[in-house]
Amino acid sequence: MNAPAVVPALQARMDDSNLSSRYDDVRNTTTRLARPLAIEDYVIQSSPDCSPAKWHLAHTTWFFENFLLGPGLPGYRPFHPQYGFLFNSYYETVGTFFPRPLRGMLSRPTVEDVYRYRAHVDEHMHQLMERLDADRDPQLIERITLGLHHEQQHQELLLTDIKNLLALNPMRPAYLPLPDALEIQATPSSQWLEFPAGMVGVGARGEGFCFDNETPHHRTFLEAFALAPQPVTNGQYLEFIDAGGYDEASLWLSDGWRRVRESNWRAPLYWEQIDGRWWHMTLHGLLPVDPDRPVCHVSYFEADAFARWSGKRLPTELEWEAAAAALPVEGNFLDSGSMQPSGSGNASRQMFGDVWEWTSSAYLPYPGYRPLPGSLGEYNGKFMVSQMVLRGGSCITPRSHMRATYRNFFYPPDRWQFMGIRLAR
Amino acid sequence: MNAPAVVPALQARMDDSNLSSRYDDVRNTTTRLARPLAIEDYVIQSSPDCSPAKWHLAHTTWFFENFLLGPGLPGYRPFHPQYGFLFNSYYETVGTFFPRPLRGMLSRPTVEDVYRYRAHVDEHMHQLMERLDADRDPQLIERITLGLHHEQQHQELLLTDIKNLLALNPMRPAYLPLPDALEIQATPSSQWLEFPAGMVGVGARGEGFCFDNETPHHRTFLEAFALAPQPVTNGQYLEFIDAGGYDEASLWLSDGWRRVRESNWRAPLYWEQIDGRWWHMTLHGLLPVDPDRPVCHVSYFEADAFARWSGKRLPTELEWEAAAAALPVEGNFLDSGSMQPSGSGNASRQMFGDVWEWTSSAYLPYPGYRPLPGSLGEYNGKFMVSQMVLRGGSCITPRSHMRATYRNFFYPPDRWQFMGIRLAR
Amino acid sequence: MNAPAVVPALQARMDDSNLSSRYDDVRNTTTRLARPLAIEDYVIQSSPDCSPAKWHLAHTTWFFENFLLGPGLPGYRPFHPQYGFLFNSYYETVGTFFPRPLRGMLSRPTVEDVYRYRAHVDEHMHQLMERLDADRDPQLIERITLGLHHEQQHQELLLTDIKNLLALNPMRPAYLPLPDALEIQATPSSQWLEFPAGMVGVGARGEGFCFDNETPHHRTFLEAFALAPQPVTNGQYLEFIDAGGYDEASLWLSDGWRRVRESNWRAPLYWEQIDGRWWHMTLHGLLPVDPDRPVCHVSYFEADAFARWSGKRLPTELEWEAAAAALPVEGNFLDSGSMQPSGSGNASRQMFGDVWEWTSSAYLPYPGYRPLPGSLGEYNGKFMVSQMVLRGGSCITPRSHMRATYRNFFYPPDRWQFMGIRLAR
Amino acid sequence: MNAPAVVPALQARMDDSNLSSRYDDVRNTTTRLARPLAIEDYVIQSSPDCSPAKWHLAHTTWFFENFLLGPGLPGYRPFHPQYGFLFNSYYETVGTFFPRPLRGMLSRPTVEDVYRYRAHVDEHMHQLMERLDADRDPQLIERITLGLHHEQQHQELLLTDIKNLLALNPMRPAYLPLPDALEIQATPSSQWLEFPAGMVGVGARGEGFCFDNETPHHRTFLEAFALAPQPVTNGQYLEFIDAGGYDEASLWLSDGWRRVRESNWRAPLYWEQIDGRWWHMTLHGLLPVDPDRPVCHVSYFEADAFARWSGKRLPTELEWEAAAAALPVEGNFLDSGSMQPSGSGNASRQMFGDVWEWTSSAYLPYPGYRPLPGSLGEYNGKFMVSQMVLRGGSCITPRSHMRATYRNFFYPPDRWQFMGIRLAR
Repeated sequence: MNAPAVVPALQARMDDSNLSSRYDDVRNTTTRLARPLAIEDYVIQSSPDCSPAKWHLAHTTWFFENFLLGPGLPGYRPFHPQYGFLFNSYYETVGTFFPRPLRGMLSRPTVEDVYRYRAHVDEHMHQLMERLDADRDPQLIERITLGLHHEQQHQELLLTDIKNLLALNPMRPAYLPLPDALEIQATPSSQWLEFPAGMVGVGARGEGFCFDNETPHHRTFLEAFALAPQPVTNGQYLEFIDAGGYDEASLWLSDGWRRVRESNWRAPLYWEQIDGRWWHMTLHGLLPVDPDRPVCHVSYFEADAFARWSGKRLPTELEWEAAAAALPVEGNFLDSGSMQPSGSGNASRQMFGDVWEWTSSAYLPYPGYRPLPGSLGEYNGKFMVSQMVLRGGSCITPRSHMRATYRNFFYPPDRWQFMGIRLAR
Repeated sequence: MNAPAVVPALQARMDDSNLSSRYDDVRNTTTRLARPLAIEDYVIQSSPDCSPAKWHLAHTTWFFENFLLGPGLPGYRPFHPQYGFLFNSYYETVGTFFPRPLRGMLSRPTVEDVYRYRAHVDEHMHQLMERLDADRDPQLIERITLGLHHEQQHQELLLTDIKNLLALNPMRPAYLPLPDALEIQATPSSQWLEFPAGMVGVGARGEGFCFDNETPHHRTFLEAFALAPQPVTNGQYLEFIDAGGYDEASLWLSDGWRRVRESNWRAPLYWEQIDGRWWHMTLHGLLPVDPDRPVCHVSYFEADAFARWSGKRLPTELEWEAAAAALPVEGNFLDSGSMQPSGSGNASRQMFGDVWEWTSSAYLPYPGYRPLPGSLGEYNGKFMVSQMVLRGGSCITPRSHMRATYRNFFYPPDRWQFMGIRLAR
Repeated sequence: MNAPAVVPALQARMDDSNLSSRYDDVRNTTTRLARPLAIEDYVIQSSPDCSPAKWHLAHTTWFFENFLLGPGLPGYRPFHPQYGFLFNSYYETVGTFFPRPLRGMLSRPTVEDVYRYRAHVDEHMHQLMERLDADRDPQLIERITLGLHHEQQHQELLLTDIKNLLALNPMRPAYLPLPDALEIQATPSSQWLEFPAGMVGVGARGEGFCFDNETPHHRTFLEAFALAPQPVTNGQYLEFIDAGGYDEASLWLSDGWRRVRESNWRAPLYWEQIDGRWWHMTLHGLLPVDPDRPVCHVSYFEADAFARWSGKRLPTELEWEAAAAALPVEGNFLDSGSMQPSGSGNASRQMFGDVWEWTSSAYLPYPGYRPLPGSLGEYNGKFMVSQMVLRGGSCITPRSHMRATYRNFFYPPDRWQFMGIRLAR
Repeated sequence: MNAPAVVPALQARMDDSNLSSRYDDVRNTTTRLARPLAIEDYVIQSSPDCSPAKWHLAHTTWFFENFLLGPGLPGYRPFHPQYGFLFNSYYETVGTFFPRPLRGMLSRPTVEDVYRYRAHVDEHMHQLMERLDADRDPQLIERITLGLHHEQQHQELLLTDIKNLLALNPMRPAYLPLPDALEIQATPSSQWLEFPAGMVGVGARGEGFCFDNETPHHRTFLEAFALAPQPVTNGQYLEFIDAGGYDEASLWLSDGWRRVRESNWRAPLYWEQIDGRWWHMTLHGLLPVDPDRPVCHVSYFEADAFARWSGKRLPTELEWEAAAAALPVEGNFLDSGSMQPSGSGNASRQMFGDVWEWTSSAYLPYPGYRPLPGSLGEYNGKFMVSQMVLRGGSCITPRSHMRATYRNFFYPPDRWQFMGIRLAR
């Protein structure tokens, strides 16, 4: 792969010491998140969408080995000849890979093997980082940054996938005990946020790291719109349930209605009714549904049906971005340790954290979009069909991973991420 | 259902005599299209996407019975108490309906029964039309127009579904013999059509009939773009095949690549290689692939991969509409009798007819979209997820059914419609 | 294929005139059975187990064309070059064949084409039969007899498959109107039939036509046993239903219980409860369930569960045969025209007609079994796994097709044949 | 559950000290077999037929807890309130149970939890055994014996399931390294074993432990038959492969041929061809196929096709039993530590060990069969449909678990047990 003259989507610039320290921070965070797991928890793939924790730990490591150590560290030899096959996720141009739906069929390498793999790659990454020169090696430095954001994405996935696994277990085990301290919630505003019609600039401007799918920055015209100041709460969603929302075909997209009936959806994922009261599985085990917290684990179909029932709609991703662009990236992120949506953010305009917000925008390329050159061009671009964009990050997204231009994307029926709803009109 | 004060999407206005004569024209065209069929051809559902010819004939009739005669003709009693159940397609708010995948399991009512149903409804529709007054009954008149456009949609579906059925048959029967006269093809232009950046108005303005999904007319901003003057030809597509396009993962969207391998796609639908030469099934039986005609029966995945291989892209639906807005609706439509893409349209800018053109736009509501009130609101709006927009009509679309703002929509893997490719850059 | 010196399973001997007249009888019976069908009824395959009526008419004809006219009539040329491919059922050694689950996808050849095919083959079969000499051509004569029994099997299948198709139709059409005359039923005996332990001879002795799977005649030892004098009635089966038989896991084989839950079985196939009363679909349309008639359309799982609930068991096929061997082949067969189980047979020992009786015997080769030589060896032998034997014929079996040694076989969950229950102890 | 006056199928009689010591032997053997496993190996369910090792360890323990400690040890309280739900395999009459296909979705209880469960139950079982009196508690003593045989069955399943899991892993890990010592193989006899026609007694006589499905002892008549002196070898099976056995439809049962094509079977399970040479996965990792050892991991379909290709047949289970009845239970069992078929048994008549031998007998009740009373009646009887009997035990069956009357049973396509072929004629 020849390095292009300009790499449009990787704009991070940092000196070496920063990079090395940030590398350790991110890698250690992953390890720290895995610490509460039993060996057994690392192994299982609870659905084809999920991956075993062990796999997340190994795949993020393979990313550095394959995209950094291989091309960048002279004389580096892969830790194990088959790990490239086992831990490549979907890069067709890198080589064949183990079938995704079978990731949970591999008892070996063991968890201990995977930690040795991580240590081996970390050691060699430090050797590489010591040799790097910002002027000479801008592309490798940018790639390390990309690898760290990639690992942050998998930190979130590791937690969503562990939640999925533990929720399947009739014993309802907790990933972590519920923190003692009660969370303080601000009184939410009821004042909708109004925006006038006009041309706006959207997409990443290249002033910090971004994924290629956030580029290019471009102009668009938005009609006047308004957004709710916070995400929809469990209490509001319970009204929808109690009003028979799941029984009323006219509220649903056709594909959504078919799914409601086929999968017998009656509530968000992880909710269960016990003696007439709603509980839901959380990373802290089974807890009562709190009406004041943002609703979570709803599909696009449910978000859309709720909005229709409310007489409102979902925002487009560009409306969302226009509303969030000027705000600081603050909210209930992974860093808070809460691991649940809290609704405790900025009361008058909470755009970040708590839950990823479904938008009404399909995940498509921006005008003039060009994927990264080489194999890393497979990172985002090849998924631009049949998925919807979500914005804003969740309570298990690392704060340093988030920004206003960030485009997350999932299929309309997906529910296992921390997904919620914001209304627009 | 209460009639709303304003019905935004049904703007047709015509005097009674016009309406009655247009009604007969459309209804008779359906019958004429079915004439070459054997009774046996009417019965089979060749895939879950298709419907038996018999069903199309009955469902379009039910549409008039249910939405016009029921509410509009005093004392009208349904022709048969179970036909509402059998021939409602998907209107949840009208009542339950027979499962779509089982439409081919019904040998009764017979074809003769269905023609008697048509005659019965036609007779009563004429009674109704004689009673209508344009000032008093604007909504009913609009609905009849909608019913006729609905029937025209099913004329096209009847032909695509019959083609699908006959193509499954190892005897490769023709729907109609190939017309004698050779078609004359204009020499195509190679001059791309250039458009400057700017604000444009898109969507239906309400000057003639349109579906609700074409509304409201609204402003949007388009960057400068260029379109190829004609659809991609079989010859151009054969270059893609010969260059190994179906073997090169990097050309494909991820979902598309999975589908290519799972379904072992090697060429457009209905193509087969015999002794090294490509043939394809047409409504005139098995014919050699003509390199000068537009390629047809490709999925969105194939259209997108071909565009990527060409170093180009697909147009957005609004780019397409901006380019077509000022043109007359001329081209190779059903009215030509050709029933194959010909490539014989306007050589310098052919936007209509021949093949529906995949755009890169997901099928989503326009800003401010509101579906029709009542059950007819299910006509279009509930399908606005996971599908892509196609534009321009095909060689089996009735010309009077087409307009520049028309939005057709199918799922990315669909191929059985007359779907082709236009490039943009 | 070389004719073997001895063909053990085809023992029919008859002079030429008999054969020709029997040929016409059987072939005309097929046509007569198809007469009440609309063209539309001929086309549909209502489940992968069933075949379109059109296919039955053509396949039985192909049998004569392929196994008689091809090898036996000099200069014979197939009626159509593709019919061998289309109407070979499963003879791998004859050549490839059209996939069974897609038989309902073929609108052509039309019904009229198929009748012309029948006439063509009948004409040539008569030419062949005129040339045959019993001494010179014993194998061809035996094969014609086999072909006629084969066609009789398909007469029964044609009716079971038509019933299956019409029962799927919400309009519940009748194949034929209910005959006027009430049927007279004998008062059934309650005297069980007792048989002592001992060696018995079972299997066909070669004194008339039989299939290869009935051979060789052989000795076996049976412990003492007793059989119920008649099949179980609807009334008895309703007691099982009312006692919660479908809810009580301990009554069921494990595979059966899984099927009960997966398919939500609550009664025999074609039964439905309307306003608290049981009705069932018959060839005469929807009729009330008559408690005095034999229960029909139950799976092996249901027969076995009913027997367990009764404190009894099902007979083995050899017990059944020992009990029936000395009896005349009399009962309610197709010839009665009733087309429903009547329970009107010999009151003290009814072994034949009404319903095929599930036995507890797996369909396996008799000791020393050898299939027919050549392709006709595929007729029976290759199905000898995972199926259960049924005995005695049904109300839609031609009487001349039946004998005490006849072994029918279906999979344990199958219900669409006229299958019932006899108890043993 | 009331104890019946006579428990026909549990005939073991032993004094208390024997029982306690045998209990420890069997339970410790299970633990010893699990010792080579990594924690990760315990968790995964590699196919719906298999269970995680962890589940085997817990389920066998639950058997003692539920069927012995619950009814037999006053005041015993279950170790964990949900283990009954999680580790009941299929006893509908005991209560609901966790769905079998999801057994690999449970990371908790952990392996350590399961070992604590085992220790807890073992401790209480010793308390129970100390209290038992042979005269007063014959049924409980018989049940303990049943529980130990049950655990021995799961010892074999634990190994077959671990082999299945490790064989899926591209790293081809070994369960245990290959033992150093070469095995000595006797020169096999080519002398077929001949048996005359006559009445024989078959089934268990009640002189030692047996399962209920081996009863009652009864008379049957067998025609003269002959058996091959040893199972078919890899070398003989390779001739079948090389002769195109997997490509020749006429050799196969119809269901088998469909499976061959759908699953693309080209050799026994676990075989793979590398550079033109056949290897197979064993519990000692990937090894070359040894032509002198018995072929293993073939389905009934393959056994039957091989026999047909050989011009022979498979034995019936009663022929097999008649041939084995007088022999000592000697052969290559789990006790040898080999864990592979060796072919090293008695050269002139090897009936036991190495591989389970498919018979041509469907798994059905013997005449007069009665299942055990109560929930334990579900142990064997409810599986008596659609499966075939296998005889003789394998190289991973504990020798003390085997006897001539033992009936194992699997579905015709199953291959993951140590299954082989003996020919008859």
